[in-house]
Amino acid sequence: MKVLVVGATGEIGRAVMQALAERGHAVVRAGRTRGDHQVDITSEASVQALYAAVGRVDAIVSAAGGLHFAPLAEMTAANFNIGLQDKLLGQVRLALLGQHVLNDGGSITLTTGVAADDPVRGGSNAAAVNAAVEGFVLGATIELPRGLRINAVSPTLLTESLAAYGALFPGVETVPAARVALAYVRSIEGPLTGRVFRVWQ
Amino acid sequence: MKVLVVGATGEIGRAVMQALAERGHAVVRAGRTRGDHQVDITSEASVQALYAAVGRVDAIVSAAGGLHFAPLAEMTAANFNIGLQDKLLGQVRLALLGQHVLNDGGSITLTTGVAADDPVRGGSNAAAVNAAVEGFVLGATIELPRGLRINAVSPTLLTESLAAYGALFPGVETVPAARVALAYVRSIEGPLTGRVFRVWQ
Repeated sequence: MKVLVVGATGEIGRAVMQALAERGHAVVRAGRTRGDHQVDITSEASVQALYAAVGRVDAIVSAAGGLHFAPLAEMTAANFNIGLQDKLLGQVRLALLGQHVLNDGGSITLTTGVAADDPVRGGSNAAAVNAAVEGFVLGATIELPRGLRINAVSPTLLTESLAAYGALFPGVETVPAARVALAYVRSIEGPLTGRVFRVWQ
Repeated sequence: MKVLVVGATGEIGRAVMQALAERGHAVVRAGRTRGDHQVDITSEASVQALYAAVGRVDAIVSAAGGLHFAPLAEMTAANFNIGLQDKLLGQVRLALLGQHVLNDGGSITLTTGVAADDPVRGGSNAAAVNAAVEGFVLGATIELPRGLRINAVSPTLLTESLAAYGALFPGVETVPAARVALAYVRSIEGPLTGRVFRVWQ
Protein backbone atom coordinates (compact mmCIF):
# COMPACT_ATOMS: atom_id res chain seq x y z
CA MET A 1 0.00 0.00 0.00
CA LYS A 2 0.98 3.62 -0.48
CA VAL A 3 0.68 5.32 2.89
CA LEU A 4 0.98 9.04 3.64
CA VAL A 5 2.19 9.73 7.18
CA VAL A 6 1.67 13.31 8.36
CA GLY A 7 3.74 14.12 11.42
CA ALA A 8 6.28 11.59 10.25
CA THR A 9 9.20 13.01 12.21
CA GLY A 10 7.60 12.87 15.65
CA GLU A 11 8.05 9.98 18.07
CA ILE A 12 4.87 8.26 16.93
CA GLY A 13 5.31 9.08 13.26
CA ARG A 14 8.80 7.61 13.17
CA ALA A 15 7.65 4.40 14.83
CA VAL A 16 4.68 4.10 12.47
CA MET A 17 6.93 4.61 9.46
CA GLN A 18 9.33 1.97 10.69
CA ALA A 19 6.50 -0.54 11.21
CA LEU A 20 4.97 0.20 7.82
CA ALA A 21 8.31 -0.04 6.00
CA GLU A 22 9.02 -3.41 7.63
CA ARG A 23 5.66 -4.62 6.33
CA GLY A 24 6.49 -3.59 2.77
CA HIS A 25 4.35 -0.50 2.46
CA ALA A 26 5.52 2.50 0.47
CA VAL A 27 5.57 5.39 2.91
CA VAL A 28 5.42 9.06 1.98
CA ARG A 29 6.53 11.27 4.86
CA ALA A 30 5.11 14.72 5.55
CA GLY A 31 6.15 17.02 8.36
CA ARG A 32 6.00 20.64 9.38
CA THR A 33 9.64 21.23 8.54
CA ARG A 34 11.07 17.84 7.52
CA GLY A 35 10.08 14.75 5.54
CA ASP A 36 9.44 14.27 1.82
CA HIS A 37 6.83 17.04 1.90
CA GLN A 38 6.26 20.00 4.19
CA VAL A 39 2.74 20.75 5.38
CA ASP A 40 0.98 23.07 7.81
CA ILE A 41 -2.21 21.27 8.79
CA THR A 42 -3.78 24.51 10.01
CA SER A 43 -3.70 25.80 6.42
CA GLU A 44 -6.27 24.66 3.86
CA ALA A 45 -3.97 25.64 0.98
CA SER A 46 -1.04 23.76 2.48
CA VAL A 47 -2.99 20.51 2.90
CA GLN A 48 -4.45 20.86 -0.59
CA ALA A 49 -0.93 21.31 -1.97
CA LEU A 50 0.27 18.23 -0.08
CA TYR A 51 -2.45 16.02 -1.54
CA ALA A 52 -1.88 17.45 -5.02
CA ALA A 53 1.82 16.61 -4.75
CA VAL A 54 1.38 13.13 -3.27
CA GLY A 55 -1.49 11.94 -5.48
CA ARG A 56 -3.77 9.05 -4.65
CA VAL A 57 -2.95 6.91 -1.62
CA ASP A 58 -4.29 3.84 0.15
CA ALA A 59 -3.97 5.17 3.67
CA ILE A 60 -3.52 8.48 5.43
CA VAL A 61 -2.02 8.57 8.92
CA SER A 62 -2.00 11.71 11.01
CA ALA A 63 0.31 11.84 14.00
CA ALA A 64 0.30 15.63 14.07
CA GLY A 65 -1.25 18.46 15.97
CA GLY A 66 -0.51 20.85 18.80
CA LEU A 67 -2.43 21.48 22.02
CA HIS A 68 -2.37 24.24 24.62
CA PHE A 69 -1.61 23.25 28.19
CA ALA A 70 -2.42 25.74 30.95
CA PRO A 71 -4.09 25.75 34.37
CA LEU A 72 -7.86 26.05 33.98
CA ALA A 73 -7.89 29.25 36.06
CA GLU A 74 -5.57 30.90 33.53
CA MET A 75 -6.86 29.31 30.33
CA THR A 76 -8.37 31.78 27.86
CA ALA A 77 -10.67 31.03 24.96
CA ALA A 78 -7.97 32.33 22.60
CA ASN A 79 -5.43 29.86 23.98
CA PHE A 80 -8.00 27.08 24.00
CA ASN A 81 -8.58 27.76 20.32
CA ILE A 82 -4.95 26.86 19.55
CA GLY A 83 -5.69 23.19 20.07
CA LEU A 84 -9.01 23.48 18.25
CA GLN A 85 -7.29 24.88 15.16
CA ASP A 86 -4.28 22.56 15.27
CA LYS A 87 -4.79 19.02 16.60
CA LEU A 88 -8.58 19.09 16.11
CA LEU A 89 -9.38 21.03 12.95
CA GLY A 90 -5.96 20.23 11.45
CA GLN A 91 -6.65 16.51 11.64
CA VAL A 92 -10.27 16.97 10.54
CA ARG A 93 -8.97 18.94 7.54
CA LEU A 94 -6.59 16.09 6.67
CA ALA A 95 -9.58 13.73 6.75
CA LEU A 96 -12.07 15.96 4.91
CA LEU A 97 -9.68 16.70 2.03
CA GLY A 98 -8.12 13.25 2.29
CA GLN A 99 -11.37 11.35 1.71
CA HIS A 100 -11.23 12.48 -1.93
CA VAL A 101 -7.68 11.24 -2.64
CA LEU A 102 -8.06 7.79 -1.08
CA ASN A 103 -8.30 4.71 -3.24
CA ASP A 104 -11.32 2.45 -2.68
CA GLY A 105 -11.05 0.62 0.61
CA GLY A 106 -8.53 3.13 1.92
CA SER A 107 -8.24 4.34 5.47
CA ILE A 108 -7.69 7.44 7.57
CA THR A 109 -6.07 7.08 10.99
CA LEU A 110 -6.00 10.07 13.34
CA THR A 111 -4.30 10.47 16.71
CA THR A 112 -5.92 11.37 20.01
CA GLY A 113 -4.54 10.55 23.48
CA VAL A 114 -5.25 9.20 26.92
CA ALA A 115 -6.02 12.66 28.31
CA ALA A 116 -9.51 12.43 26.78
CA ASP A 117 -10.36 9.60 29.20
CA ASP A 118 -7.99 10.26 32.11
CA PRO A 119 -7.51 14.04 32.18
CA VAL A 120 -4.29 15.61 33.40
CA ARG A 121 -3.79 18.90 35.23
CA GLY A 122 -3.67 21.77 32.80
CA GLY A 123 -5.13 19.48 30.17
CA SER A 124 -8.68 20.76 29.64
CA ASN A 125 -7.75 21.62 26.05
CA ALA A 126 -6.20 18.20 25.51
CA ALA A 127 -9.27 16.47 26.96
CA ALA A 128 -11.62 18.41 24.70
CA VAL A 129 -9.54 18.11 21.53
CA ASN A 130 -8.84 14.40 21.88
CA ALA A 131 -12.50 13.68 22.64
CA ALA A 132 -13.54 15.78 19.66
CA VAL A 133 -11.32 13.86 17.25
CA GLU A 134 -12.79 10.62 18.60
CA GLY A 135 -16.30 12.03 18.15
CA PHE A 136 -15.43 13.02 14.59
CA VAL A 137 -14.27 9.48 13.83
CA LEU A 138 -17.61 8.11 15.07
CA GLY A 139 -19.54 10.67 13.07
CA ALA A 140 -17.50 10.35 9.87
CA THR A 141 -17.44 6.57 9.62
CA ILE A 142 -21.16 6.29 8.88
CA GLU A 143 -20.83 8.56 5.85
CA LEU A 144 -17.69 7.30 4.14
CA PRO A 145 -18.34 5.67 0.74
CA ARG A 146 -16.32 3.13 -1.31
CA GLY A 147 -15.30 1.00 1.66
CA LEU A 148 -13.29 3.87 3.12
CA ARG A 149 -12.57 3.59 6.83
CA ILE A 150 -11.57 5.96 9.62
CA ASN A 151 -10.15 5.23 13.07
CA ALA A 152 -8.25 6.96 15.84
CA VAL A 153 -5.33 5.77 17.92
CA SER A 154 -5.27 6.97 21.52
CA PRO A 155 -1.81 6.43 23.01
CA THR A 156 -0.94 6.90 26.64
CA LEU A 157 2.38 8.49 27.58
CA LEU A 158 5.17 7.13 25.39
CA THR A 159 8.19 5.61 27.05
CA GLU A 160 10.25 7.83 24.76
CA SER A 161 8.42 10.93 26.11
CA LEU A 162 8.78 10.14 29.80
CA ALA A 163 11.55 12.66 30.39
CA ALA A 164 9.64 15.47 28.68
CA TYR A 165 6.08 14.85 29.91
CA GLY A 166 6.33 12.42 32.81
CA ALA A 167 5.46 15.09 35.39
CA LEU A 168 1.98 15.40 33.84
CA PHE A 169 1.29 11.68 34.24
CA PRO A 170 2.31 10.56 37.74
CA GLY A 171 2.13 6.80 38.13
CA VAL A 172 1.12 6.19 34.54
CA GLU A 173 2.71 3.16 32.90
CA THR A 174 4.25 4.19 29.61
CA VAL A 175 4.15 2.30 26.33
CA PRO A 176 6.95 2.20 23.77
CA ALA A 177 6.24 3.96 20.49
CA ALA A 178 6.79 0.67 18.66
CA ARG A 179 3.78 -0.78 20.49
CA VAL A 180 1.64 2.27 19.67
CA ALA A 181 2.65 1.85 16.02
CA LEU A 182 0.91 -1.54 15.96
CA ALA A 183 -2.45 0.19 16.45
CA TYR A 184 -1.86 2.19 13.28
CA VAL A 185 -1.00 -1.00 11.41
CA ARG A 186 -4.22 -2.51 12.73
CA SER A 187 -6.21 0.48 11.51
CA ILE A 188 -4.55 0.48 8.08
CA GLU A 189 -4.56 -3.25 7.31
CA GLY A 190 -7.53 -4.44 9.37
CA PRO A 191 -11.27 -4.31 8.65
CA LEU A 192 -12.42 -2.06 11.50
CA THR A 193 -13.81 1.45 11.18
CA GLY A 194 -15.20 4.08 13.52
CA ARG A 195 -13.00 2.73 16.31
CA VAL A 196 -10.67 4.28 18.84
CA PHE A 197 -7.70 1.99 19.47
CA ARG A 198 -6.61 2.78 23.01
CA VAL A 199 -3.00 1.76 23.62
CA TRP A 200 -2.75 1.76 27.39
CA GLN A 201 -1.34 -0.58 30.01
CA MET B 1 -29.84 30.37 44.13
CA LYS B 2 -29.12 32.97 41.48
CA VAL B 3 -28.84 31.14 38.16
CA LEU B 4 -27.75 32.56 34.82
CA VAL B 5 -29.26 30.72 31.85
CA VAL B 6 -27.58 31.42 28.52
CA GLY B 7 -29.72 30.36 25.59
CA ALA B 8 -32.78 31.00 27.68
CA THR B 9 -35.20 31.43 24.81
CA GLY B 10 -34.54 28.09 23.11
CA GLU B 11 -36.63 24.97 23.74
CA ILE B 12 -34.28 23.67 26.40
CA GLY B 13 -33.56 27.06 27.96
CA ARG B 14 -37.25 27.81 28.40
CA ALA B 15 -37.89 24.46 30.06
CA VAL B 16 -34.87 24.89 32.35
CA MET B 17 -36.05 28.37 33.34
CA GLN B 18 -39.52 27.05 34.10
CA ALA B 19 -38.15 24.24 36.27
CA LEU B 20 -35.79 26.57 38.12
CA ALA B 21 -38.47 29.19 38.73
CA GLU B 22 -40.81 26.53 40.13
CA ARG B 23 -38.07 25.53 42.55
CA GLY B 24 -37.65 29.09 43.80
CA HIS B 25 -34.41 30.02 42.07
CA ALA B 26 -33.79 33.54 40.80
CA VAL B 27 -33.17 33.16 37.08
CA VAL B 28 -31.34 35.65 34.89
CA ARG B 29 -32.03 35.05 31.23
CA ALA B 30 -29.49 35.69 28.47
CA GLY B 31 -30.05 35.13 24.78
CA ARG B 32 -28.62 36.13 21.44
CA THR B 33 -31.45 38.56 20.74
CA ARG B 34 -33.89 38.20 23.65
CA GLY B 35 -33.89 37.74 27.43
CA ASP B 36 -32.75 40.04 30.22
CA HIS B 37 -29.31 40.32 28.61
CA GLN B 38 -28.06 39.84 25.06
CA VAL B 39 -24.87 37.88 24.48
CA ASP B 40 -22.87 36.50 21.59
CA ILE B 41 -20.97 33.53 23.01
CA THR B 42 -18.50 33.61 20.12
CA SER B 43 -17.29 37.01 21.34
CA GLU B 44 -14.95 37.34 24.32
CA ALA B 45 -15.99 40.96 24.88
CA SER B 46 -19.69 40.08 24.78
CA VAL B 47 -19.38 37.31 27.38
CA GLN B 48 -17.21 39.55 29.58
CA ALA B 49 -19.86 42.25 29.36
CA LEU B 50 -22.58 39.75 30.28
CA TYR B 51 -20.78 38.63 33.44
CA ALA B 52 -19.98 42.24 34.37
CA ALA B 53 -23.68 43.11 34.07
CA VAL B 54 -25.01 40.05 35.89
CA GLY B 55 -22.49 39.95 38.74
CA ARG B 56 -21.80 36.93 40.90
CA VAL B 57 -24.03 33.89 40.48
CA ASP B 58 -24.48 30.43 42.01
CA ALA B 59 -24.95 28.58 38.76
CA ILE B 60 -24.35 29.08 35.07
CA VAL B 61 -26.37 27.10 32.54
CA SER B 62 -25.53 27.10 28.85
CA ALA B 63 -28.14 25.85 26.43
CA ALA B 64 -26.61 27.70 23.52
CA GLY B 65 -24.44 27.05 20.51
CA GLY B 66 -24.71 26.41 16.81
CA LEU B 67 -23.41 23.51 14.73
CA HIS B 68 -22.87 22.95 11.02
CA PHE B 69 -24.69 20.04 9.41
CA ALA B 70 -23.51 18.88 5.99
CA PRO B 71 -22.75 15.62 4.23
CA LEU B 72 -19.20 14.52 5.00
CA ALA B 73 -18.29 14.54 1.31
CA GLU B 74 -19.15 18.25 1.13
CA MET B 75 -17.99 19.35 4.58
CA THR B 76 -15.14 21.85 4.54
CA ALA B 77 -12.80 22.74 7.37
CA ALA B 78 -14.17 26.28 7.29
CA ASN B 79 -17.74 25.04 7.78
CA PHE B 80 -16.59 22.57 10.42
CA ASN B 81 -15.04 25.47 12.29
CA ILE B 82 -18.48 27.08 12.69
CA GLY B 83 -19.43 24.53 15.33
CA LEU B 84 -15.97 24.69 16.90
CA GLN B 85 -16.29 28.44 17.39
CA ASP B 86 -19.95 28.42 18.46
CA LYS B 87 -21.22 25.42 20.43
CA LEU B 88 -17.72 24.27 21.46
CA LEU B 89 -15.56 27.34 22.10
CA GLY B 90 -18.61 29.46 22.94
CA GLN B 91 -19.57 27.15 25.78
CA VAL B 92 -15.93 26.75 26.86
CA ARG B 93 -15.65 30.55 26.95
CA LEU B 94 -18.76 30.75 29.16
CA ALA B 95 -17.10 28.27 31.52
CA LEU B 96 -13.59 29.78 31.47
CA LEU B 97 -14.81 33.30 32.19
CA GLY B 98 -17.67 32.03 34.34
CA GLN B 99 -15.44 30.16 36.81
CA HIS B 100 -14.34 33.55 38.16
CA VAL B 101 -17.86 34.93 38.80
CA LEU B 102 -19.26 31.83 40.54
CA ASN B 103 -19.86 31.83 44.27
CA ASP B 104 -18.21 29.02 46.27
CA GLY B 105 -19.88 25.69 45.57
CA GLY B 106 -21.35 27.01 42.33
CA SER B 107 -21.85 25.04 39.15
CA ILE B 108 -21.51 25.24 35.41
CA THR B 109 -23.81 23.10 33.23
CA LEU B 110 -23.12 22.87 29.51
CA THR B 111 -25.17 21.21 26.76
CA THR B 112 -24.04 18.49 24.37
CA GLY B 113 -26.31 16.01 22.57
CA VAL B 114 -26.95 12.42 21.62
CA ALA B 115 -25.13 12.81 18.29
CA ALA B 116 -21.81 12.41 20.13
CA ASP B 117 -22.72 8.80 20.95
CA ASP B 118 -25.15 7.91 18.18
CA PRO B 119 -24.05 9.95 15.16
CA VAL B 120 -26.53 11.13 12.55
CA ARG B 121 -25.99 11.61 8.82
CA GLY B 122 -24.42 14.98 8.11
CA GLY B 123 -23.52 15.20 11.77
CA SER B 124 -19.74 14.81 11.86
CA ASN B 125 -19.47 18.35 13.24
CA ALA B 126 -22.13 17.66 15.86
CA ALA B 127 -20.42 14.44 16.90
CA ALA B 128 -17.06 16.17 17.32
CA VAL B 129 -18.38 19.27 19.07
CA ASN B 130 -20.59 17.41 21.52
CA ALA B 131 -17.80 14.97 22.35
CA ALA B 132 -15.39 17.87 22.81
CA VAL B 133 -17.65 19.64 25.30
CA GLU B 134 -17.96 16.38 27.23
CA GLY B 135 -14.17 16.00 27.17
CA PHE B 136 -13.80 19.56 28.42
CA VAL B 137 -16.12 18.82 31.35
CA LEU B 138 -13.97 15.82 32.30
CA GLY B 139 -10.80 17.85 31.99
CA ALA B 140 -12.07 20.95 33.80
CA THR B 141 -13.63 19.25 36.80
CA ILE B 142 -10.28 18.14 38.23
CA GLU B 143 -9.02 21.73 38.32
CA LEU B 144 -11.98 23.69 39.69
CA PRO B 145 -11.36 25.19 43.15
CA ARG B 146 -13.76 26.28 45.93
CA GLY B 147 -16.17 23.37 45.49
CA LEU B 148 -17.08 24.53 42.00
CA ARG B 149 -18.60 21.86 39.80
CA ILE B 150 -19.09 21.36 36.06
CA ASN B 151 -21.35 18.92 34.20
CA ALA B 152 -22.91 18.49 30.78
CA VAL B 153 -26.42 17.48 29.80
CA SER B 154 -26.73 15.38 26.66
CA PRO B 155 -30.32 15.40 25.43
CA THR B 156 -31.66 13.24 22.66
CA LEU B 157 -34.16 14.67 20.16
CA LEU B 158 -36.74 16.80 21.99
CA THR B 159 -40.40 16.01 21.49
CA GLU B 160 -40.83 19.71 20.78
CA SER B 161 -38.22 19.51 17.99
CA LEU B 162 -39.62 16.45 16.23
CA ALA B 163 -41.16 18.42 13.38
CA ALA B 164 -37.96 20.37 12.71
CA TYR B 165 -35.31 17.66 13.15
CA GLY B 166 -37.13 14.32 13.15
CA ALA B 167 -35.80 13.36 9.71
CA LEU B 168 -32.27 13.27 11.14
CA PHE B 169 -33.25 10.79 13.86
CA PRO B 170 -35.34 8.00 12.34
CA GLY B 171 -36.79 5.71 14.98
CA VAL B 172 -35.41 7.73 17.89
CA GLU B 173 -37.72 8.09 20.87
CA THR B 174 -37.99 11.73 21.79
CA VAL B 175 -38.01 13.22 25.28
CA PRO B 176 -40.02 16.26 26.35
CA ALA B 177 -37.98 19.37 27.18
CA ALA B 178 -39.43 19.30 30.70
CA ARG B 179 -37.73 15.96 31.29
CA VAL B 180 -34.43 17.25 29.92
CA ALA B 181 -34.73 20.20 32.29
CA LEU B 182 -34.56 17.83 35.26
CA ALA B 183 -30.98 16.97 34.34
CA TYR B 184 -30.02 20.64 34.66
CA VAL B 185 -31.72 20.79 38.07
CA ARG B 186 -29.73 17.70 39.06
CA SER B 187 -26.49 19.33 37.95
CA ILE B 188 -27.26 22.62 39.73
CA GLU B 189 -28.62 21.31 43.02
CA GLY B 190 -26.89 17.92 43.28
CA PRO B 191 -23.37 17.02 44.39
CA LEU B 192 -22.01 15.52 41.16
CA THR B 193 -19.27 16.97 38.98
CA GLY B 194 -17.44 15.95 35.82
CA ARG B 195 -20.53 14.05 34.68
CA VAL B 196 -22.48 13.85 31.46
CA PHE B 197 -26.18 13.44 32.20
CA ARG B 198 -27.56 11.59 29.19
CA VAL B 199 -31.31 12.09 28.83
CA TRP B 200 -32.31 9.32 26.46
CA GLN B 201 -35.03 6.74 26.32
